[in-house]
Amino acid sequence: MNKNNFVAINYITSDASYIERFEYLFSTRAHAIDKIEGFLYMEVLKPTDPNDNTYLIVSHWENEESFKLWSKSPQFLEGHKRGFDDIKQAKQSGGHPPVTSDFKTYKVFTE
Amino acid sequence: MNKNNFVAINYITSDASYIERFEYLFSTRAHAIDKIEGFLYMEVLKPTDPNDNTYLIVSHWENEESFKLWSKSPQFLEGHKRGFDDIKQAKQSGGHPPVTSDFKTYKVFTE
Repeated sequence: MNKNNFVAINYITSDASYIERFEYLFSTRAHAIDKIEGFLYMEVLKPTDPNDNTYLIVSHWENEESFKLWSKSPQFLEGHKRGFDDIKQAKQSGGHPPVTSDFKTYKVFTE
Repeated sequence: MNKNNFVAINYITSDASYIERFEYLFSTRAHAIDKIEGFLYMEVLKPTDPNDNTYLIVSHWENEESFKLWSKSPQFLEGHKRGFDDIKQAKQSGGHPPVTSDFKTYKVFTE
């Protein structure tokens, strides 16, 4: 049986002005997710098209349950703290959030 | 150096009536791509949302050049033969193609 059978993708679109900060946050990420049981690995995919600002945060899981537990865990908040703070700050100063995100989940159908 | 640094994603949206055939084609795929130098592995991701008919065909490559060589290779045509035939047939009988696809490429930014 293949352990890698559940994949979550967060499609995050960043304002052009926020990309440097966005990349900094991921390149110095907290690795909080790495401690979750059932988490296998993740990849941050950066579009090769310079006009495309939608990054893919792809996480691989042993099963859907592990992913769901993570999304309600203290580690989820810890891992997203700086990003969430940026969004909160933008809203408090009357601006729009510097990123928008769209979360989708998948089964590994075949390889 | 991490070998896995280039990712191509084909976002394929299938007509509901074509999904069974689409899944069959991938579960019996030709494995033509597997012979290409620089190809690492691929995954077919099926949405967990039953209203979402967009599958992701994710291929991992050592570099962009390997991917580009594959996209112009006889193996590319061999690997897509049955799917391309279905599209051709639909067009010849005046219908629309049963799938639409959107190809995007990415660098692995971080893990």
